[in-house]
Amino acid sequence: MNEHNHPQSKQVINRLSRATGHLESVKKMAEEGRDCSELLVQISAVISALNSASKVILEDHINHCVVEAAKVDDKKVINDLIDAINEYVGINVKKDAGIH
Amino acid sequence: MNEHNHPQSKQVINRLSRATGHLESVKKMAEEGRDCSELLVQISAVISALNSASKVILEDHINHCVVEAAKVDDKKVINDLIDAINEYVGINVKKDAGIH
Repeated sequence: MNEHNHPQSKQVINRLSRATGHLESVKKMAEEGRDCSELLVQISAVISALNSASKVILEDHINHCVVEAAKVDDKKVINDLIDAINEYVGINVKKDAGIH
Repeated sequence: MNEHNHPQSKQVINRLSRATGHLESVKKMAEEGRDCSELLVQISAVISALNSASKVILEDHINHCVVEAAKVDDKKVINDLIDAINEYVGINVKKDAGIH
């Protein structure tokens, strides 16, 4: 396991925990046959919470892992970040094996 | 409670259930201090699953509730849908109190 911690790790866990609880309650709303528009609003709130958590993760990651990786020319960390961003935003960011 | 069901209700509940389990496992990954890029990829997968569930809800809703509402000129259902879409996509869709 590639264990590591960041200043915001606790905050990220709390945000993911709240989003999980929120999503659990949205599932219950669906089971109760609640109005579709209500469901859509609540799902969009969960997505918004997940986007916020991702921003915190990304900022922490860039400030720590990526800065450290750049110093020792660790291409794997940089390329993994690019892959993750590509996955996240659904557009292709070009990889550059060299760190300048 | 405004209880109602759609042909895809069961599918929506299953998708939300899977997304909840997935998000729970992402939270555990964060607790274990797993790599940030891995976390971002998994969070984006959960968001993608929630977007898919929302598409199913929206399609079902438009095919049933909205079509029925239009027939009886029920502006609330239409306006609630517009509010939900505004919330979801983050842009303003103009409301039109009249159904033509």
